[in-house]
Parts: sequence; structure tokens; C-alpha cells
Amino acid sequence: MIFTSDNAFGVAPEILEAISRANEGAVVSYGGDEITKRLEGRFAEIFEHEVAVFPVATGTAANALALATLTPPYGAILCHEHAHVNADECGAPEMFTGGAKLVGVSGAAGKVDPAALEIALAAMPAGNVHNAQPSTLTLTQSTEFGAVYSIEELRRLTGVARERRLAVHMDGARFANALVTLGCTPAEMTWKAGVDVLSFGATKNGALAAEAVVFFDPARATDFGFRRKRSGHLFSKMRFVSAQLEAYLAGGLWLRNAGHANAMAKRMAAGLALVNSARLLAPVDANEIFVRLPRGMLKRLREAGAGFHPWPMDGDDAENRTIRLVASFATRAEDVDQFLQVVSG
Amino acid sequence: MIFTSDNAFGVAPEILEAISRANEGAVVSYGGDEITKRLEGRFAEIFEHEVAVFPVATGTAANALALATLTPPYGAILCHEHAHVNADECGAPEMFTGGAKLVGVSGAAGKVDPAALEIALAAMPAGNVHNAQPSTLTLTQSTEFGAVYSIEELRRLTGVARERRLAVHMDGARFANALVTLGCTPAEMTWKAGVDVLSFGATKNGALAAEAVVFFDPARATDFGFRRKRSGHLFSKMRFVSAQLEAYLAGGLWLRNAGHANAMAKRMAAGLALVNSARLLAPVDANEIFVRLPRGMLKRLREAGAGFHPWPMDGDDAENRTIRLVASFATRAEDVDQFLQVVSG
Amino acid sequence: MIFTSDNAFGVAPEILEAISRANEGAVVSYGGDEITKRLEGRFAEIFEHEVAVFPVATGTAANALALATLTPPYGAILCHEHAHVNADECGAPEMFTGGAKLVGVSGAAGKVDPAALEIALAAMPAGNVHNAQPSTLTLTQSTEFGAVYSIEELRRLTGVARERRLAVHMDGARFANALVTLGCTPAEMTWKAGVDVLSFGATKNGALAAEAVVFFDPARATDFGFRRKRSGHLFSKMRFVSAQLEAYLAGGLWLRNAGHANAMAKRMAAGLALVNSARLLAPVDANEIFVRLPRGMLKRLREAGAGFHPWPMDGDDAENRTIRLVASFATRAEDVDQFLQVVSG
Amino acid sequence: MIFTSDNAFGVAPEILEAISRANEGAVVSYGGDEITKRLEGRFAEIFEHEVAVFPVATGTAANALALATLTPPYGAILCHEHAHVNADECGAPEMFTGGAKLVGVSGAAGKVDPAALEIALAAMPAGNVHNAQPSTLTLTQSTEFGAVYSIEELRRLTGVARERRLAVHMDGARFANALVTLGCTPAEMTWKAGVDVLSFGATKNGALAAEAVVFFDPARATDFGFRRKRSGHLFSKMRFVSAQLEAYLAGGLWLRNAGHANAMAKRMAAGLALVNSARLLAPVDANEIFVRLPRGMLKRLREAGAGFHPWPMDGDDAENRTIRLVASFATRAEDVDQFLQVVSG
Repeated sequence: MIFTSDNAFGVAPEILEAISRANEGAVVSYGGDEITKRLEGRFAEIFEHEVAVFPVATGTAANALALATLTPPYGAILCHEHAHVNADECGAPEMFTGGAKLVGVSGAAGKVDPAALEIALAAMPAGNVHNAQPSTLTLTQSTEFGAVYSIEELRRLTGVARERRLAVHMDGARFANALVTLGCTPAEMTWKAGVDVLSFGATKNGALAAEAVVFFDPARATDFGFRRKRSGHLFSKMRFVSAQLEAYLAGGLWLRNAGHANAMAKRMAAGLALVNSARLLAPVDANEIFVRLPRGMLKRLREAGAGFHPWPMDGDDAENRTIRLVASFATRAEDVDQFLQVVSG
Repeated sequence: MIFTSDNAFGVAPEILEAISRANEGAVVSYGGDEITKRLEGRFAEIFEHEVAVFPVATGTAANALALATLTPPYGAILCHEHAHVNADECGAPEMFTGGAKLVGVSGAAGKVDPAALEIALAAMPAGNVHNAQPSTLTLTQSTEFGAVYSIEELRRLTGVARERRLAVHMDGARFANALVTLGCTPAEMTWKAGVDVLSFGATKNGALAAEAVVFFDPARATDFGFRRKRSGHLFSKMRFVSAQLEAYLAGGLWLRNAGHANAMAKRMAAGLALVNSARLLAPVDANEIFVRLPRGMLKRLREAGAGFHPWPMDGDDAENRTIRLVASFATRAEDVDQFLQVVSG
Repeated sequence: MIFTSDNAFGVAPEILEAISRANEGAVVSYGGDEITKRLEGRFAEIFEHEVAVFPVATGTAANALALATLTPPYGAILCHEHAHVNADECGAPEMFTGGAKLVGVSGAAGKVDPAALEIALAAMPAGNVHNAQPSTLTLTQSTEFGAVYSIEELRRLTGVARERRLAVHMDGARFANALVTLGCTPAEMTWKAGVDVLSFGATKNGALAAEAVVFFDPARATDFGFRRKRSGHLFSKMRFVSAQLEAYLAGGLWLRNAGHANAMAKRMAAGLALVNSARLLAPVDANEIFVRLPRGMLKRLREAGAGFHPWPMDGDDAENRTIRLVASFATRAEDVDQFLQVVSG
Repeated sequence: MIFTSDNAFGVAPEILEAISRANEGAVVSYGGDEITKRLEGRFAEIFEHEVAVFPVATGTAANALALATLTPPYGAILCHEHAHVNADECGAPEMFTGGAKLVGVSGAAGKVDPAALEIALAAMPAGNVHNAQPSTLTLTQSTEFGAVYSIEELRRLTGVARERRLAVHMDGARFANALVTLGCTPAEMTWKAGVDVLSFGATKNGALAAEAVVFFDPARATDFGFRRKRSGHLFSKMRFVSAQLEAYLAGGLWLRNAGHANAMAKRMAAGLALVNSARLLAPVDANEIFVRLPRGMLKRLREAGAGFHPWPMDGDDAENRTIRLVASFATRAEDVDQFLQVVSG
């Protein structure tokens, strides 16, 4: 009954096997191995586009490296005010960019509001040396609050970025979950919608520690290798990171895992919708649920062994508090049902 | 017959098994798991000292984070001119410290020469705002050139550092190899010899991707956690990094692996010593060999399938070139012998 | 009729004379001269407290250096969302701190709202490695919008900071203007109210280019000298910066200049208050005025030679726009009256 | 009898007058004033080339900003091992570049040795992610040790740089002194000799605090303005910096001042050459002298009121020590003669 995070769970068996399989003989280190070499082709197929692909091991590394490649030190990165890059990475983008400014923009359910984005940009004229120069827009898909941008929503925001000549980054820590929800192609949700660079997450969805930074314009990636090395994110035994990504993509594992996680979240949401004292605070588009529950109920849940993450929000009071529940590739239907039983009990 | 690097080899079976074993159920992420929690005690036992221990996944991360914790942005880090931190990390210490200066000091076989160190320090008076402030001495054990500092050599250098109030860091990417050579205790080679912080390497000696930063004065480590997170080196599924370290230390695996690698290097060196046209350029104290060979012989070696790393050095000429050979935990005696056969043939 | 900025005006004659007077013979460079040496004593007198004082030449340098001394790279600096450090220094605090995060807090008339501050702090728990660590609160006195914090307001905010162990910095680019308004002592407006470090501005109030960073706890200033040097803000011919500060403080020039500027602003505000179509948008506590005027009137003002700064604000529309007017030590009553005549005409 | 530094002296009268003259009325701040606007044209005339010119107030700022514009954070800056940027700026280039690496190259009298430069570059292959990427060569003219590169020497070094696609910066803190010595045009000593960006010094040669960063390819300068602002080096009352530069260049003042300083140094060197116990340690090409003298003589000089800078060098011993003597625009012949009298006495 653990719903604290998708990264509380371990590794999908297919991925663990791939790691074992990769443990064969001596190979060229630092990414010169065959598994790593064939990754780029695999991503190009999946995204139907020429790409440059760089495996790294954490989402924070993927995001910070991608943003540093796109943003000069005197630049500004526009993001949702509650985006992971702004609120949960202890200043990683600031470190990797050499001090660029993150400008948080408001919006419901973790989605950047286009009007708020335009207002934020208007306050930072291009060429004015007194303000940081808007350089990059980063969007999280699915969002910090479990919502999924529609293709139209993405296009509208990337359009605003394009007018101001901003690069567009997508934080896809939960990319597969969003993709399954939209039922579109990876291409439609990225470069066709105006995304330049993607942090493609696998860790939360069954990998041990593997993410890929995907550039849809390889020309933008010329200095990524140096940035990755000097930040300590180039692995000597790279084959073991690449093997995770290969297995993740093989035979649709990534989509299966995400589909399962999403289904478990829907199941939970459907159950909670029947509970009078429960209030869902964001759309359950992917694998996360934000729900306000009575404190007594939370206490009972803990006593029953449920794991979840307190998530203080405006509107919480002495009686009711918000929590976050996350379903993963390994979440079982019986865990959801047991949770719902306590809630309904 | 691959001797390019110890990281060309994969993962020791005991460590791969530990990763699989750790893949059980949901646990607290980001290092709150039980395996990670018990690491500190294990290291304390081994080093016979209170320690603060932080697992990371690459040697560059370990070094850069350790140095950034010890060195202010206006500080100077004294190191051997050819140290990995100075020559092979694409400026990682500069990035992590916010622009501290690495000051390379000369010395034979990768060992910092104490007299050269004193001269370098004399040129940078403490308190003089015009020069970077000497803050940290970092020593590599075993060195970049396969030599091992004796305890006396370490003490002499850390003594110089102490007089100038410098912190002392040890880059122990090949710590186990040196330890086996000296036959001393981990304590004797570190805190008893004046080392404050250690980058304890496991990756080159059989781990998949695991290093530990070990502080012998935990009070120095108060901000390490923030620096690790913002550089993207805090793993959500930390148990899989910690499990590698635990298995590495269990039952003396680390010393066995290192002992084997050293023995293979000795076997190679002994063989090369019998070859007239081969010239060993550094003491073979650990698992690395630097040898100058005739170009024709190098050609024959390549044709026979031998892997090695060209290592241009002063004294190379049209006839002879230097190469580096590295033995690992997985190097087989027959590979060494086959290599020697080509050389002698 | 120039009201664009207080820095559009030149140098007060007393200060220019002091520069000329300082141009005598050879002296120790980099601040070893007698003028610089006696500055600290002068500031200690004025602030009735032991101080460490560092002259620099720009307000951005003063702020960024002060904040970098107080805030680690993984720290957060709490400030008003429209504070100069956040909106008008192109990321200087981010650069000098090595990537700390500026967290903008809302509040009327440029004053940080205490409740909003507490909410912002609550979202960034101390010790949680995922978020930047709240380290410093910076308050601008007088504010970006021409208001002046009362002593009680300052105390309330510094009290919140103290509870969370934040250092408190005051951006006093217009310190003298605020001091004259409050009619209190420099001590009362700074350390007695909980301020740890002050950017003491002189440039806007009649100096050529001179500011002082004042530490009320000299122990906090130990690394300031290194930071000043490596950012290029240590002047070789320091005596000419220090001479400006000395003249600024001599015989109450600073308070006279500020008093005059404030009086001119009051005169302007009083005149504008009589104009039906003019709407003052912030209290005129110091030497700045934010007023919304009909576009036709702005056109007439420009044609009459008036200088002012457009300052787009919420509520501006097709008919009316907001502008900023700033009075300086050199603003003449007849300029104010001429401006008002056009407005009233 | 002060020979400690050229910046121990004050401001040339012509420059002080220009500051006073500029103190007229209200002007556009931050460089929008007329004096600043006409600077670029003036520099274009003098250098016979299109230029982009940015006034700053210190040499460290000029150098660090120029280098940061040319060098990415993962870049390496090749310089003489004793260059001011490497030894005397407390890590300013490291700070401004975001952690680039300064690679010191040896060479007599402060001149980079071309062979040593080639060796240093060979150790840092372009495109290899493990080493910092050689990006910029910086040459000091005249050098830290008072020597002046000939045009041929400059061309040879910039040729090496060009082959490796490095940008070339010249630290011209004492540019005028070198120019007078070579008797060539400013164009010949800069862009015609392969220099891309120049730190044009005026402070040491009679300005109060004024330097100019001169780009011979204005396209390289597109982000300089942002870097200058965020490092706190954009002056609000810019006219007073620009006025110094204008007066410095007017009527050949800069060359007159430098010519005088050089002549005084020659006079001193000629006198010292006659003293048996004195040993000149570097060519006296400009306005600096490095001379080894008996300690007893140094004591007598101090007692007689002479000011000079101890400059420890290899070869100093119990009997003899090296000092640096610097002549300035304000050094009087009688001071030189008095110094020589003590030496000869």
C-alpha cells in the first residue's frame, strides 16, 4: 500500500535482466560501447526525427544539463512556479547554467498559463541589459500535479516561446504516462508541438537510474558532452545506463508500464470520487493523485500501513489535509483497493 | 587481451547479485532505505573512525563534490599537475566550487613533490586578496601513473598542508589497489596520515557505478547533501548504489579484486622487464603500467587483438611510444601471458 | 525638467572637490591609503556600532557582493518580487552567489508582505535537500516604489527572518532618503532593527560612483575582500572612491541632499494631488513618484522637454499610463513647478 | 621616491579636468550619454578598424569580462604562468567564465614561449570531453615582467592560436607603454597581429579608474553588455568613466604619459647597470624594472624613503633579493636620481 512516489519502487525485471546481459566482456568505456551507439538510432525511430541522445542517470541531471545547453548565464528560464526544476532541485538549473534566473509562472494543475507567461515575458524585454534575457521555456509533461497538457495547449505555449525566440524544453520525467494518456505519437507530443529538447525519463517508470536528453536539432547539442563530463554525469561503464534505456523501449515496455500506472491511478481516483469527505484537487490525467482527506482518515491510513506524501496546499485546515498518491508500474490493484477500503471504512 | 582501462570491464558477479537482491518491494527513496542507512556504520568499522558517508555514482562527482565542500570559490586546490581532477575532468572542480583555481604541482610518477608544493604555496600568501587562497590539497592514491605513496610520503605532504591550514582530500579512485600494496589499514592510509575527506572508489574495481565520499570529520559535511542534490547526484533509487558498496565491502571482495588486479599488473611488469626494447616509465605499485615500446611491436599487439591506451610522454620518438596498460579485477593471467608472448615474439 | 532618474544627475560639488583634493602624491594602492583607512571609523560613529566597511563603485556590486557573502550557492534569497536585485540586475546575485535562488515575495508599494514571506518560507523547509535553503532576506529601503518601511515594519520582517535563522541585508541605494523620512538614527534603521549588512548608497544621492557595504558584525565579512577582488571591484586608486564617501558623510551633506530630493518629490506629489486626471499609485515617502496620467498629457510633457520613465503597471489602459518621476539632490523647484504647470495646463 | 606601482599615483590633471567638465546637467544614464556615444568612433579612428567598445573601471573587470565573452565554462584559457589573470586576480576569470580553466605556460620575461604553448595545447585535444577545451589565448603587452613582445613574437603566438581556433585576447593594462616602445600603430600591435579583443588600460597611466574592452569583431560582443551589467560593472553615471577615456586619448596624452614613464624606467635601468651589485633580471622594455639588490642596500633605500615592491624570484638568497620598480606618468627624474644615489652611495 505504498503510494509515496513512483521512485519508491524498484526496477522492472526486463530492465534488470538487460543490465545482467550487458555484463559481458570488456567494452569501450564512456559511451563508446555498442549498446550506447545503437541508442540514437532507436530514439530516432521512436521520435521519427533525427536526434542527438545523451544518457544520464538522474532527472535532475537531465533537466539541468538540457537547460544549461539552452540558456546563457544571463538568461531566464520560464517555468511553472511549482515545476520540479524550480522547487525541487535545490537550484540545479542555477548551478549548471552559471546563475540563470528561473522565473516561475502560475497556472492551474501545474500547467503554465499562457496569459501569465506573456505577462512574465513582457516584464523582461529582450536586449535590455538590466533584466535577465528570456531564453528558455520549460514545460513538464505530465505536470507536477498529475495533469497532462493537450497538444493544443503545448502548441499555444511553444508558440508564445517561438515569438520571443525562446528555446523549448520538456521535462518528461513522466513522459510515458502523458503519452499513454494522450494516445498520440512521441513526435506529436514533442518536436511537432514545438519542443526542442526533451528530458526523457525512465527511472520513475521502471529503470534503475536512466534518463535520456534528446535534442531534436542535433546542432544544439554540440557542447552537451563537455557539460555532461564536467558535471560528473558521464559514466565510465555507460553500457549499463544505455542497456536500461534499450530495454525500456524494447517491445513497448515503457508504454505498458506507464499504462499500468495510469490505470491504477484512475482506479484510485474513481474510488475516491465516491467518498464524500475526499476532494480531488487536480485532474488525474496520469499516475498522480492530489486529494484532500480528513485528518482522522489519514491517521487510519497510516495505521493500516499506507504510504503517501503530505502535500500542503491552500485550503488545508485543521480538519482536512492534502496528500499526494502516486501509482507506479509495480502498483497492484489490491493495494489500491485496500487503500480505498480504509478510506471508505 | 584488453588493458585499456579498469573501467572497460563490467561488474563483479557479487555486486550484480546484490543489485538484484536489493530489488525487493517499495522503500524510502533518496537514501532513506535500510541499505543506505547501514552503510555509514560499515564504513566506520572499516576506517575505525566516525564518518559521514555519501554514495555517488561517478568518480568525477565524488571528487568535485568533496573539493567543493572543502574549498571556497576564491580558494585554490593544490594537486599534482597531471591529477585526474586537473587534467581529466573537463573542469569539474572549477564548476562545483564556483571557480576555484587548480594549481598543478610537479613530481615524479604522479606524486606531488613536497618541495614543489611548498614553492607553490609560498607564491600564494594567505590573506592576500590578489591571489586565490590555498584551501585544499588533493592527493591521488594510487597515482595517475600507477605509483603508491608510502605512509611517510603522505604524512610529509599532509604536514605541509596542515601548516598552511589546508584541508586534505584523497582521490581514491584506486584506493583498494594502493591499500593492498601498502598492506596497511584503511585508517593508516587516511585519517591517521592526515586525510580529511576521501573519494572512495569502487567502480574501477568491480562496481557498476558506485563511489563513496567519506568525511572523517562529519562536521565538515553539513552542506554536502545540498551540493549533491543540486548537482544531480542524489539518486532516487539510492538503494541500488548503496547495495553495490555494501557488496563491495562484504567479505573482503574489494581487497580480493584489487589484489588480483595488482598481481596481474606485476605479472605483466615482470614479463616486460625481460624485454630489451621495453622501458617501464613508472613504478608498478598498483594495477597500472606505463611502458615505452617500439612502434612495430605496438602494431603487432593491435593486430593480435590487444587493447591499450596511447599515453604520449616526453622521450617518445619516431621509434618508440609510451602506452598505458591497466589490469582489472577481471583480467586473466592468460591475457597477460598472451600479451607478453606477442611482445617477446 | 528631468525626472527620469536620480542617477541622470552628476556629482555634488562637495564630492567633486574631495576627489580633486585626494589627487595628491603617491599613496598605497588598493585601499591602503589614509582616506580609506579612516572610513571605517567614520561609519562606526554614524552607525554607533563596530562595523566593517568596504567601498565599491556600483549598487549592483554592493548588493551582489553582500548577498554572496551571506548566502551559499544552494541558498535562497527572499526579496520583494520587484526588488532591484531580482528584476534589474540581470542576475547579478545569481552570478556572485554561484547560483543561489532569488525568491520573490509580493507586497504593496515594494514592501515585502510578512504573511507572504512566511508562506514562501514554509514552502522551503530547512534541511530538506530538495529545495534551496532559505538563507537571506533582503529589504530595500526606500523601496523600488518610493515607499519607506517604518521601524516596526522592518522589525516584524527581520523577526520572521531571525526565527528561520536568515541573515538580513538592506539594499540602501536610497538609504539617506528613507532616513530623512523616518527622522530616526542610522542605527535605528539598521542593526537595531535587525539588519546585518547594509548596501549604503551614495551614487544616486550625489556621488560619482561610490557605495559602501557595511557589516554590523565584522566576523561575517572575513571573505568579502576576496570576493570583491575576484569580481573586479577592488579599485587600485581606491582613495578616489573613499574620498567620495568621506565627503558625502561630511557635515551632513548626505542628509541635506536627500532632504532636498524628498522635498522636491513632496512638492511634485502635492501638485499632482490637485490634478483630477492624475492618480498616485504609491505613497511618496522618499524621492520617487509613481503616477498614472492620461496619454495626451504625457505627450504634452515630452513636448515641453520633461524627462520621465514609463513604468507599465496593472491598470494601465488605452487612455492612461503610469510613469515614474524621481527627484534628486540637484532637482530644482522651478523644474517641478514647470512640470506641474504643463500637467495642470 | 615611490616606485611601488604605477597605480600608487593619482590622476593626470587633464583627466581630472575632463571629469569636472562632464559634470554638467542631467544626461541619460548607463552609457546613453553623448560622451560615451562618441567613444566608439574615437577608438575606431585610433585603431583604424570597426570596433565595439565597452568602458569599465578596473583592469580585472576588463580582463575577466573579455575572457568570459570568449571562453565557455568548459573552456581553457592559455596564458603565461605569471600573467595577472592567472596570479593576481583571485580567480576572476574563473568566476566570470563559470569555471573555465587557466592553463599557465612558461616563458622568459613574462612572454609565452611558443613551443611551450604548443606542448600545452597538444595535451588538451579538441573534442575530447575529458579535458577542458582550449578556447582562448591571452597575452599581456607589456608583460608582467616589463618586457614587450615584438610584432613578430605576437604574430607567431597568435598564429599558433589561430591553427587551434583559439580566440586571442590582449591584456593591455600597460598597452600605451608597449606601443611607445615598439613605435608602431595601435592597429599593428592588435588586430593586424591577430588580436581579437583588447583590454585597453588607462588607469595605470593616469586615469582615475577607466579601462576599455575593445572588440575588433563587434559580432563577438553581442552578450558583453549583459555580462557587464550582471557583474556590477555598468556604471549609472557612465559619462565620468567615458570622459576619462576621452581625455586620455585626446591630443596624445596617453602616449605622452607612457613615454615619460618609459623614459624614467630607462633612466633608472641605465643607472642600475652601472652598479656592480645590482642585477637586472628582465629587459626594461616599458616602465617596470626587476632588479636583484643586496639586502643592505634595500635597507638603506627604505630608510631613505624609497618605495618598492619585494618580488621574490628564483636565485634570491640570504644576501640578495629581487624587487620591482615601476615608473609612472608622474615619476620625476629627481626621484630616479635620488634612488640611484642611494644605490650608488
